[in-house]
Amino acid sequence: MFVQFEELKSVIKKALLNAGLTEEQAEICAEVHAQSSRDGVESHGLNRVPRFVDYVNKGWVDLNSEMELVKAKGFMEHYDGGLGIGIVNAKKASKRAVELAKEHGLGLVTLSNTTHWMRGGTYAWDTVEEGFIGINWTNTESSMPVWGSKKPTIGNNPICIAVPYKDKPFVLDMAISQYSYGKLEVTRLAGKELPYPGGFDKDGNLTSVPGDIEESLRILPIGYWKGSGFAIALDLMASMLSKGRTAADMDKEGKGSCTGCSQVFIAIDPYVFATKEETEKIAEGLINQVKNAERIDPNREITYPGEGVLARRKKALTEGVHVDDSVWEEVKKL
Amino acid sequence: MFVQFEELKSVIKKALLNAGLTEEQAEICAEVHAQSSRDGVESHGLNRVPRFVDYVNKGWVDLNSEMELVKAKGFMEHYDGGLGIGIVNAKKASKRAVELAKEHGLGLVTLSNTTHWMRGGTYAWDTVEEGFIGINWTNTESSMPVWGSKKPTIGNNPICIAVPYKDKPFVLDMAISQYSYGKLEVTRLAGKELPYPGGFDKDGNLTSVPGDIEESLRILPIGYWKGSGFAIALDLMASMLSKGRTAADMDKEGKGSCTGCSQVFIAIDPYVFATKEETEKIAEGLINQVKNAERIDPNREITYPGEGVLARRKKALTEGVHVDDSVWEEVKKL
Repeated sequence: MFVQFEELKSVIKKALLNAGLTEEQAEICAEVHAQSSRDGVESHGLNRVPRFVDYVNKGWVDLNSEMELVKAKGFMEHYDGGLGIGIVNAKKASKRAVELAKEHGLGLVTLSNTTHWMRGGTYAWDTVEEGFIGINWTNTESSMPVWGSKKPTIGNNPICIAVPYKDKPFVLDMAISQYSYGKLEVTRLAGKELPYPGGFDKDGNLTSVPGDIEESLRILPIGYWKGSGFAIALDLMASMLSKGRTAADMDKEGKGSCTGCSQVFIAIDPYVFATKEETEKIAEGLINQVKNAERIDPNREITYPGEGVLARRKKALTEGVHVDDSVWEEVKKL
Repeated sequence: MFVQFEELKSVIKKALLNAGLTEEQAEICAEVHAQSSRDGVESHGLNRVPRFVDYVNKGWVDLNSEMELVKAKGFMEHYDGGLGIGIVNAKKASKRAVELAKEHGLGLVTLSNTTHWMRGGTYAWDTVEEGFIGINWTNTESSMPVWGSKKPTIGNNPICIAVPYKDKPFVLDMAISQYSYGKLEVTRLAGKELPYPGGFDKDGNLTSVPGDIEESLRILPIGYWKGSGFAIALDLMASMLSKGRTAADMDKEGKGSCTGCSQVFIAIDPYVFATKEETEKIAEGLINQVKNAERIDPNREITYPGEGVLARRKKALTEGVHVDDSVWEEVKKL
């Protein structure tokens, strides 16, 4: 079914208040979850609220904790998230990176001991809407086998990169796994195959059959060995620069998805070396080449990351936000 | 055949001196090409020298040009490469990023109007050997179709990430295409197929047959649509932050590979928020988990990026560096 954005936000907020969040915490989180559903990222929107509430009930998220500055060096700052609410912490950290970038040209904030930030794109959008380039990533518990192994040993470590461009910013929001387990499940339930191979089955054959990958847990990193290496790089940098947990540390604690994770937020002033007009002209050449490229399907427009989000957002704000009926009822009862 | 490292370097240096490089330029470039062959990256080692000399002869590389500081803001600096020698420029830029990081904790250098940096890993290794995290990338002319298109429209934009770790640093050096055209050629000449699909054939079918991809020019980005977006992100950031050329600009000029490209060099002090001992302990947990992961092939050790390079380097320095016989003769005659 479809619901109005404000109604969606209000229902989520009520559930979060009932879970013990303060008015301010519930307002921030409800907005982010509702925005995620609005932008088409339902997995981390309404659908994710029950699991968040479950983590709160388990004591895996500390509602009384506030992130604290551990150390600052000029435009670089390290915060301890105190296992507080992932969204609240990440919102503050990305905002702080922008403040530092406003003053210094670039701001780098690292955040340790935090919890799931939900939709990573949230913070990249925040940053780009302030007019800054945003590069944010998080590590996660193990969810993919390292290249050469059969067992999950590395995180899928989502990274988001946002670059200002006119009123249509470029915003990439990607995990380093080719598909999420959520996508595998949805595809399996629809009785379909993945559009491209997503992992190995238990016999080690590359496969597009979602159930076979859910069984083997051998989900693919993007670019096979390349994504495997890239995921390790992102984890090493996040954990070392934040003096925080790696995937291995989270695996040992076993407190679900991203509990205790390490994150990096970088904001860069795109106009340090060129004016807004100059950078827009530079970007325009590339964007036009991409948009006007010869299409595989003549009827299918070529879009760059972020464009689709804006289109979905606009549609949802006029026609309503899609929600899953059963999840909608579930969250209403929380 | 196999040759000693010093002999290899000396032969390359002679060829470069004959091409008109100064003693200092030839020394720097010969070392980098020889190191690339030594570390197993033959495509950008000895094998690349003839093409570099060809570019010099065509006037695409300006031997008399020195890179110049255009603008500085604290720890951020922008240089114009003056279409000078790509290796010499990138060496200076990455070194400068380290100097800035020594002073400020992080250094960011952007370089516009430069030429092919050859093996990107060179600068990541330089940075990590100074004890710093290195993140470097370059844009390139179009070599891959953007997702949704049949025609090359975006660069394969190699990115290198190096993280200090004991005496075995983590060093990732990857292009955003799944395979290089060099790899396709070598595989085709050997009468083999690629280990995993590398592109689409002219009918739009995913294929592992190298010749079919060489014909269609529809090489795959890593992670399909994800790598396509990531490549655009890297180009936008490099060109905007350096006020330089995008892939589209290079395509218009049509002066071969990477002529006039834009690059970014970031060095970060890994010990800003944690000591060397602390960061090593953090990394060790993850590295051990990766190294000790259950293997697909019990006889095949799991390595992280950089480990294999060190092993090949050690072997080449004792047993000699592998060179292609015909290229060896060709460079000797240059």
